[in-house]
Amino acid sequence: MKPEETVDFQIKRTWQSIAKMYNEVAAGYGATMATGFVLLNIDSEKGTPSTALGPKMGMEATSMSRILKSMEEKELIERRPNPSDGRSVLIHLTPFGREKRKDAKQAVINFNTSVIQRFSQNEMSTFFKVIEGINTMIIDHKLESEKV
Amino acid sequence: MKPEETVDFQIKRTWQSIAKMYNEVAAGYGATMATGFVLLNIDSEKGTPSTALGPKMGMEATSMSRILKSMEEKELIERRPNPSDGRSVLIHLTPFGREKRKDAKQAVINFNTSVIQRFSQNEMSTFFKVIEGINTMIIDHKLESEKV
Repeated sequence: MKPEETVDFQIKRTWQSIAKMYNEVAAGYGATMATGFVLLNIDSEKGTPSTALGPKMGMEATSMSRILKSMEEKELIERRPNPSDGRSVLIHLTPFGREKRKDAKQAVINFNTSVIQRFSQNEMSTFFKVIEGINTMIIDHKLESEKV
Repeated sequence: MKPEETVDFQIKRTWQSIAKMYNEVAAGYGATMATGFVLLNIDSEKGTPSTALGPKMGMEATSMSRILKSMEEKELIERRPNPSDGRSVLIHLTPFGREKRKDAKQAVINFNTSVIQRFSQNEMSTFFKVIEGINTMIIDHKLESEKV
């Protein structure tokens, strides 16, 4: 089995290509892929607890708070008290952040549309079946090996 | 389009699961996924120039030299002068590194075998067709947009 024939190599390489591509698109707006992902993960209406963003994006708390700080300085987001819990805060989009969220959303739509147009519906559904199945397999196996 | 229905979300999430799983396997040997990948990318016979490893693994030069330093301290690798170029060095596996390389290889084979057993041959070939196609699409589009 050559490395380039393995499932892990293909997934890793393609994820790195996607990340590079998104970072280049984001650089055109003076931003990064991570900034775009944060914008997309904030609820435009109700705001989102800062503590919920890290797990949602699979990101460490320290990296997340660094990104949030920089986004606050750029006036993309603002912190407001949580109406249902006075001790915590919610991250809200500013009007400028809302505008930039649209750009991020468009970048995701553009990329996904290009992919979908390139392959048949059958190919895409097999692709999703396999990649979701691999993820489930890893999670199940982990749960299995954690059993006593 | 919900985030979990996008191609990029699925590839990212599955890559993160794979990386977590490999890091857990590697932790059982007191190592990391990155160490295992370096072992797999060194030519067991001729050795490999340290400068070739970073690009091969898609890793920054500074991260790579930190990993190589730690692997040298653990006596997994050693630096030897390049016989065809006296100014450069080649990274060689030590006997201990060669042994650990087998463990890393086995982890990759185990994971890939589990995946292949879970899906039909047709499903796997469609999966490879789509994921390689996505990667090619991104690279071609980049080349296209670089043209004057």
